[in-house]
Amino acid sequence: MSVNSFGHLFRFTTWGESHGPALGATIDGCPPGVPLDPAMIQQWLDKRRPGQNKNTTQRNEPDAVEILSGVYEGRTTGTPIQLMIRNTDQRSKDYGDILNTFRPGHADITYHQKYGLRDPRGGGRSSARETAARVAAGGVAREAITAIAPGVQITGYMVQMGEKKIDRARFDWDQISQNDFWCPDAQAAGEWEEYLTWLRKDDHNSVGAIIEVVARGVPAGIGAPVYAKLDTDLAAAMMSINAVKGVEIGEGMAAAALTGRDNADEIFMGNDGQPVYSSNHAGGILGGISTGQDVVVRFAVKPTSSILSPRKSITMDGQPIEVITKGRHDPCVGIRAVPVGEAMMACVILDHILLDRGQTGGVRGQIG
Amino acid sequence: MSVNSFGHLFRFTTWGESHGPALGATIDGCPPGVPLDPAMIQQWLDKRRPGQNKNTTQRNEPDAVEILSGVYEGRTTGTPIQLMIRNTDQRSKDYGDILNTFRPGHADITYHQKYGLRDPRGGGRSSARETAARVAAGGVAREAITAIAPGVQITGYMVQMGEKKIDRARFDWDQISQNDFWCPDAQAAGEWEEYLTWLRKDDHNSVGAIIEVVARGVPAGIGAPVYAKLDTDLAAAMMSINAVKGVEIGEGMAAAALTGRDNADEIFMGNDGQPVYSSNHAGGILGGISTGQDVVVRFAVKPTSSILSPRKSITMDGQPIEVITKGRHDPCVGIRAVPVGEAMMACVILDHILLDRGQTGGVRGQIG
Amino acid sequence: MSVNSFGHLFRFTTWGESHGPALGATIDGCPPGVPLDPAMIQQWLDKRRPGQNKNTTQRNEPDAVEILSGVYEGRTTGTPIQLMIRNTDQRSKDYGDILNTFRPGHADITYHQKYGLRDPRGGGRSSARETAARVAAGGVAREAITAIAPGVQITGYMVQMGEKKIDRARFDWDQISQNDFWCPDAQAAGEWEEYLTWLRKDDHNSVGAIIEVVARGVPAGIGAPVYAKLDTDLAAAMMSINAVKGVEIGEGMAAAALTGRDNADEIFMGNDGQPVYSSNHAGGILGGISTGQDVVVRFAVKPTSSILSPRKSITMDGQPIEVITKGRHDPCVGIRAVPVGEAMMACVILDHILLDRGQTGGVRGQIG
Amino acid sequence: MSVNSFGHLFRFTTWGESHGPALGATIDGCPPGVPLDPAMIQQWLDKRRPGQNKNTTQRNEPDAVEILSGVYEGRTTGTPIQLMIRNTDQRSKDYGDILNTFRPGHADITYHQKYGLRDPRGGGRSSARETAARVAAGGVAREAITAIAPGVQITGYMVQMGEKKIDRARFDWDQISQNDFWCPDAQAAGEWEEYLTWLRKDDHNSVGAIIEVVARGVPAGIGAPVYAKLDTDLAAAMMSINAVKGVEIGEGMAAAALTGRDNADEIFMGNDGQPVYSSNHAGGILGGISTGQDVVVRFAVKPTSSILSPRKSITMDGQPIEVITKGRHDPCVGIRAVPVGEAMMACVILDHILLDRGQTGGVRGQIG
Repeated sequence: MSVNSFGHLFRFTTWGESHGPALGATIDGCPPGVPLDPAMIQQWLDKRRPGQNKNTTQRNEPDAVEILSGVYEGRTTGTPIQLMIRNTDQRSKDYGDILNTFRPGHADITYHQKYGLRDPRGGGRSSARETAARVAAGGVAREAITAIAPGVQITGYMVQMGEKKIDRARFDWDQISQNDFWCPDAQAAGEWEEYLTWLRKDDHNSVGAIIEVVARGVPAGIGAPVYAKLDTDLAAAMMSINAVKGVEIGEGMAAAALTGRDNADEIFMGNDGQPVYSSNHAGGILGGISTGQDVVVRFAVKPTSSILSPRKSITMDGQPIEVITKGRHDPCVGIRAVPVGEAMMACVILDHILLDRGQTGGVRGQIG
Repeated sequence: MSVNSFGHLFRFTTWGESHGPALGATIDGCPPGVPLDPAMIQQWLDKRRPGQNKNTTQRNEPDAVEILSGVYEGRTTGTPIQLMIRNTDQRSKDYGDILNTFRPGHADITYHQKYGLRDPRGGGRSSARETAARVAAGGVAREAITAIAPGVQITGYMVQMGEKKIDRARFDWDQISQNDFWCPDAQAAGEWEEYLTWLRKDDHNSVGAIIEVVARGVPAGIGAPVYAKLDTDLAAAMMSINAVKGVEIGEGMAAAALTGRDNADEIFMGNDGQPVYSSNHAGGILGGISTGQDVVVRFAVKPTSSILSPRKSITMDGQPIEVITKGRHDPCVGIRAVPVGEAMMACVILDHILLDRGQTGGVRGQIG
Repeated sequence: MSVNSFGHLFRFTTWGESHGPALGATIDGCPPGVPLDPAMIQQWLDKRRPGQNKNTTQRNEPDAVEILSGVYEGRTTGTPIQLMIRNTDQRSKDYGDILNTFRPGHADITYHQKYGLRDPRGGGRSSARETAARVAAGGVAREAITAIAPGVQITGYMVQMGEKKIDRARFDWDQISQNDFWCPDAQAAGEWEEYLTWLRKDDHNSVGAIIEVVARGVPAGIGAPVYAKLDTDLAAAMMSINAVKGVEIGEGMAAAALTGRDNADEIFMGNDGQPVYSSNHAGGILGGISTGQDVVVRFAVKPTSSILSPRKSITMDGQPIEVITKGRHDPCVGIRAVPVGEAMMACVILDHILLDRGQTGGVRGQIG
Repeated sequence: MSVNSFGHLFRFTTWGESHGPALGATIDGCPPGVPLDPAMIQQWLDKRRPGQNKNTTQRNEPDAVEILSGVYEGRTTGTPIQLMIRNTDQRSKDYGDILNTFRPGHADITYHQKYGLRDPRGGGRSSARETAARVAAGGVAREAITAIAPGVQITGYMVQMGEKKIDRARFDWDQISQNDFWCPDAQAAGEWEEYLTWLRKDDHNSVGAIIEVVARGVPAGIGAPVYAKLDTDLAAAMMSINAVKGVEIGEGMAAAALTGRDNADEIFMGNDGQPVYSSNHAGGILGGISTGQDVVVRFAVKPTSSILSPRKSITMDGQPIEVITKGRHDPCVGIRAVPVGEAMMACVILDHILLDRGQTGGVRGQIG
């Protein structure tokens, strides 16, 4: 049992602190023979990387990944893959004045309470910098999926920032990579940009967001009832990301307001002899097992707790203090949560493809 | 790795099908010396039990639990506890006409696709009857919590049925056990009853719901970053329950709409030398570790898929068919999901108290 | 993490005490579609069952196994299989005088020290009766192996009782089931019988033994380096059996005395295009992975601690006492350890066949 | 589930190949507040390090360990500890002629069969170089034990090389670190040196050995029946080390030849109110739980397979070939297995101390 590990057969352990010498992921269970080089992983780290535009933190980390093991002549060998990312731009002095202060909304106080000591530099282990290791692991998962289950496509995007939602009628897959917000609605992206600029510069504030991640082309029949359901593992995967406060599958919380008649995804036989559905309220999962439809997960991130507006707190001595968190912080962590959510989806999908092979041999019941 | 098990140190495995001879939970990791007899568990099973009123299924199961191991002279011994519940009222004939049919919204089709065969009687393993085993395990967890961390109180209740929400201004803890809906708002309970009667009798329909579970008195400092965070485990726990489509901690999905200033839970020193907070947007968890505030989780259940209104589907032969699910079914599974959510909360809290002892010895960092 | 569970993908949890109402095994991860009925399991329990002849304990348990879940119309469904064996012949009074006494060589004292309390009836959880559950799980594993990897044959036998070893020159597979000792050497079996009768009746003593278990027909390529090697898991499997004090693979402890030249298993190409070896010092495992040769494991059991000869000990109050253990006990537990060792071998082999499918898809590197 | 990880609560994952850029251990579950710096770990790596004398391989690796995470201002924080050791002296050309050859006694052939490809440089992942990571993890475990259970002493030594055993009458703890063989018998050490020199230089051969590891001062009551017994975990720990073919606890395989009367460890009350035993046939473990006596484990390593004498084998094409393994190899791997065995003992003991706290709170049943 390792509390810093995730996954059943494709299992990664992340390690490292925000301002330590390095961080990374130790991956166990990647299938052998998968083509892999650092560039394949780097592309996803670049997507998450800080310092790229004014809407994300100005910390400038190259986030260059090194593969230290598990690959021979460009292919995985089935042995553990160690991915290491050196920290290079740790301005720990930014945090000098909060060594003895608990920042509201941060894990400073709970780490102190649990462990009796903590690495205060940049939040130490509780920093969202940990998610770089997830993105690296997700990069490996994507290559393995390509090798053993080609046709799966995983895409994340933001659907809400603050109270501003996208208009699903304007949804455009091609738009997602065209703006700073991974937003499929160009008009919403424009409004968000304006809003976020004001929030950051004038209001000294931050805001939450909702991210949606979709996996298309997932084979029917993966997922392992009852406590390793595909949706259960996705819920855990997303809730484990920093700042996430809610996770939804398909209709999500809105399912509560529906009736059984409206919520039914009716089933038909498709032209290719595979079942098709009238709708996808279920988010591609029934009884914890994939239906072959799009697997759809959404998660909400809270607004960044580190803001320039003063907030009341206490010191380690129990004295009252007002906290203004300078440092370099994202006004909306939702933006950089997009590649993180994609990475977790990739890891879960791969893991369940492998698990299904181990459980059933990957044989499928026929219909028709 | 067992996909039918849940928990780290307090780990239970559920087994059994809806219409098999029995179902139950194998519990490993219950601390020794905890007073335990069947009646202590039975009270929670009775709370979940079907056939109690017209708002839940009329299947009449006594759900009498037997303790087959792990207890000697009324106290747990630290060895595995086997809890068995005999099935007695299996009317499999109710399901005779759907042996070869995939019911929309059910796992019939995905179990068939994954395993190549399935136990069709009452949904087999995918039936919500599995949750009886969880409730039994939760009963054990409650007694262990009482023994090693007295003061923790776990309470679940419904806060929304269909589109009808409770009014938080009328919230009354004492009301919860006074109506059929575990509803803390007496007026809402009355409206729900009227609505559900109409839905069941006249509309031949079903409806979703939202359940909230609160744990009060949880010690600060439990929860294990990064992949066994308290909120991560709660998300997995709740999402693994049948029909659940969304899980929220504290503000949940609504956190997306908040700004950092509004979302801050400011910290003060309380009179007893422990930190107190101005609010609980976080739901009692920071960085995956408990703050000592109420731990608040919510989850949405979709409307029951088994309804008397016809829905389109296919047979195992791939032929089109209209499905009307007769059987005996809850028009709103949210009602019986309340004790299930409580049980999962109890298991997670106990598990993390034990895990924390194993990780840190339960020593706490001092403040002030 | 469950300390009462064994296996990676084929994972069973045993539960139950010697004199409780029942004991059993909860199996998770059995592949779907395997033909299974109680008689298939019962045959192996009958092999282990006490009370069959004068060389084993006279406790008379029918050890009738019930399948409570996971099987539908005679085939496994991929869901948990609950196997229950009722205890029927618990003469707890036999143990009345040792409720407060720690029997030398037994776990009475360590269970008391660890848990603060213990179930003293027949040794409670520490009784070798727990192995009945393993044998039942092994029975399921054998059927699954037959279904997915036909050709594997697992056979256990005794090779040493006390100081008396078999003569390998007289080894006869057919002889194994012809005597009370699962002994492949008829002459040794006769000598053992004589010796054991004297030991039991006249010497009021007991004796240790060595059991060898061989799996023939195991496919090359299963086993998972580095901490789930096939030999590592076999060592854990056998050492976890009551009274076992040593485990060997292939040459075992004798490998220490060999030189590299003598120990080399030279490799040739066989007529069927598969590698063959000049010898099997390795016991069928290289680097934790099967070679395709016979997998050979041996384990030593200590002499039964429960003997009619007085031995010095203390009571729970710390007072000195002489202990004579009456009860009903095997003078040589090695006899009944044979089917237990076979069961553990079957579980490990199945587990690794499944694990290999999950890790590599079961694809094999070609030679030649 | 990670097949490259070991331990329950103190869990480490090793990664890296013999000739890759680096190797290491990712440790999860080290308690917080433990003083730790690289020198504390380095001392144990130095003990194992190759190239120190003519009796071990001449590969000259400094084996300098870096701590990349989990430590802040000289103390562990409770977060993952990443230990990295750079490979610096990889003479891969030594292996050039065996890229397509399966060396007898090595895992070349089984890795190829399992994974379809392998890293042939120095044996890749199957090289004993992996054990450097274990020794590093063991160094951390030792410091944690010192912090939370002072008084535990772990010592390994060789008791047999080839057919030459130590004389227990000459056993001297102080002698162990005085010779190249970690031998407690000075006279035996002298004989071994002479023998090994001849074997290496003149006979172009290698030889096996037996190592014994003793843990003194282990508290009574640790160990977790039934499948995480202290002896079960020790058996797995030792059998997972390269070249190990047998593991014994206490009397080990010799227990088979004893009678119950002779094997009984009789119990008395000691002067300090703790139980004492007349002997330690059990090796300090009853029913999988420690008695408070010395925990004694022994394991046998086979002779090094890499020898200068020709041995028959096949190529990847299936062609016959004679193999002479030049490279740089230990003529007796037992010598360097001593610190590896110690490290595994340290990890198991720490793990069980933590697990016991999580299971029982570390409370102990009183005697007397």
